[in-house]
Amino acid sequence: MTQIYNDIAIIGIGLIGASAAISAKHNKLGGQIHCYDGSAQVREEAKSLRIGDVIHDDIASAVASADLVILAVPVGAMQAVMADIAPHLKSGCVITDTGSTKTSVIRDVKPSVPENCTFIAGHPLAGTEFSGPAAGFASLFDGRYWLLVPDDAPRAKTDQLSDFLAGMGALVEEMEAEYHDKIVAITSHLPHLIAYTIVGTAVDLESDLKEDVIRFSASGFRDFTRIAASDPTMWRDVFLNNDKAVLEMLQRFNEDLSYLQRAIRWHEGDKLFDLFTRTRSIRKSIIEAGQDN
Amino acid sequence: MTQIYNDIAIIGIGLIGASAAISAKHNKLGGQIHCYDGSAQVREEAKSLRIGDVIHDDIASAVASADLVILAVPVGAMQAVMADIAPHLKSGCVITDTGSTKTSVIRDVKPSVPENCTFIAGHPLAGTEFSGPAAGFASLFDGRYWLLVPDDAPRAKTDQLSDFLAGMGALVEEMEAEYHDKIVAITSHLPHLIAYTIVGTAVDLESDLKEDVIRFSASGFRDFTRIAASDPTMWRDVFLNNDKAVLEMLQRFNEDLSYLQRAIRWHEGDKLFDLFTRTRSIRKSIIEAGQDN
Repeated sequence: MTQIYNDIAIIGIGLIGASAAISAKHNKLGGQIHCYDGSAQVREEAKSLRIGDVIHDDIASAVASADLVILAVPVGAMQAVMADIAPHLKSGCVITDTGSTKTSVIRDVKPSVPENCTFIAGHPLAGTEFSGPAAGFASLFDGRYWLLVPDDAPRAKTDQLSDFLAGMGALVEEMEAEYHDKIVAITSHLPHLIAYTIVGTAVDLESDLKEDVIRFSASGFRDFTRIAASDPTMWRDVFLNNDKAVLEMLQRFNEDLSYLQRAIRWHEGDKLFDLFTRTRSIRKSIIEAGQDN
Repeated sequence: MTQIYNDIAIIGIGLIGASAAISAKHNKLGGQIHCYDGSAQVREEAKSLRIGDVIHDDIASAVASADLVILAVPVGAMQAVMADIAPHLKSGCVITDTGSTKTSVIRDVKPSVPENCTFIAGHPLAGTEFSGPAAGFASLFDGRYWLLVPDDAPRAKTDQLSDFLAGMGALVEEMEAEYHDKIVAITSHLPHLIAYTIVGTAVDLESDLKEDVIRFSASGFRDFTRIAASDPTMWRDVFLNNDKAVLEMLQRFNEDLSYLQRAIRWHEGDKLFDLFTRTRSIRKSIIEAGQDN
């Protein structure tokens, strides 16, 4: 791979930040990879895991020489982090983020971006149920979409960032913030909310039944528990910051669920069969789109 | 493995029936394995796949010599199938089933069981999103629970059936029908209903958005589409036959979802964070119980 940037700074060394640091270094996409995390414990862990080139103990020195700064913190922390780094940024640098919501991040981050720097919002559609630096790995973004919201960023800056992301194996797509938020509301945020809910319902069961639910957890519930084991801070922030799109999709979901509930109560088997047949087709489309793993 | 039964008959050559036939033969648990399916096309497919020892074209001859009859048909078909085979059963034979609901199957099947035969309801907690004979494989039940509801069956008959199921690698557990139905309502039926609903909600989206939802389907939604690709007939019958327990769990789920919906609307982040932390613990319990795959 060709080097795309000189120095790169990664703020937040969780699953995503650590994976970006490991992948950028592995693919030789940058000069020095500078990392910083607000938690001293995470910084120590990252040091012992040898993630990136330098783990900084202060955020100012982490970003000082960077041509690319990646904000890989929960979306609720973006505003404060951007305000913190703003006075220390190198002129001409590009700042991007990895947050799961885009309207809110642009709203929170843009006002603090210095005039001689460029912010390009981003979101890698990649992750696992694990969190923290030890969960990071080089191929996390390989073959996965990385959505960019270039907005009014100069074309050359966006292209350079795209090259960098493609260097980590990502498939880059550009779109608008609101459209992005709608798509992830249904593909990611609502499924997570539902998974959290159903696992929460199980957590509240009488203790004998709860033990057997864990013991006999079949496919279905098991998949839900994996989803519901995702990072609580990140997901709290997602729901608070994509509330509009999530609540809209939830409204549709509730209507559709009531329809099925009624069909079960009144033994309307044909309504159930009809829906279960239609949903099958979407799985085929996903397999055909190569997004089934 | 020791042979547990002489002849075995398997009625219904879908994913479960085919896997049982393949596994029983592979593990030498029976003499001849006789198979039958109501669909001529499925019988032809099973013949070309060489599933079992004999594929019969009529159900009477399939069960005639069997010491064990396994009913692996959708739960809505159990009553008719049992009535069909009753006059042709060998004296002393054991009949079991693989249905996902137990109260309804016992209610539907028991009245037709001849006095000189024994019915022991069963349910393997195993499956994939694929269906039909070609989806079957020998190790489907390996390390998976197979729940039995022996009710008033003679101990020796239940023990023999347990030995047979253990011979296919299954972990056999006995319980009562109503308790079984409650457990699967939360571990399997409700998750499937929810997955069907959310994928259905996506199917009904405006076509541009729907295409991008498929394209950018992330973890979460992708897991749901896999679940929602399960066999429509089987699942219609499950919901119609475990309606009581499913509707009860759905009521709890709806309450819990409303609570989260309200927390999102009013930006009560602590409520979200609290639940997301509690749900994480159940995943750990499942991993510790060795049921995480």
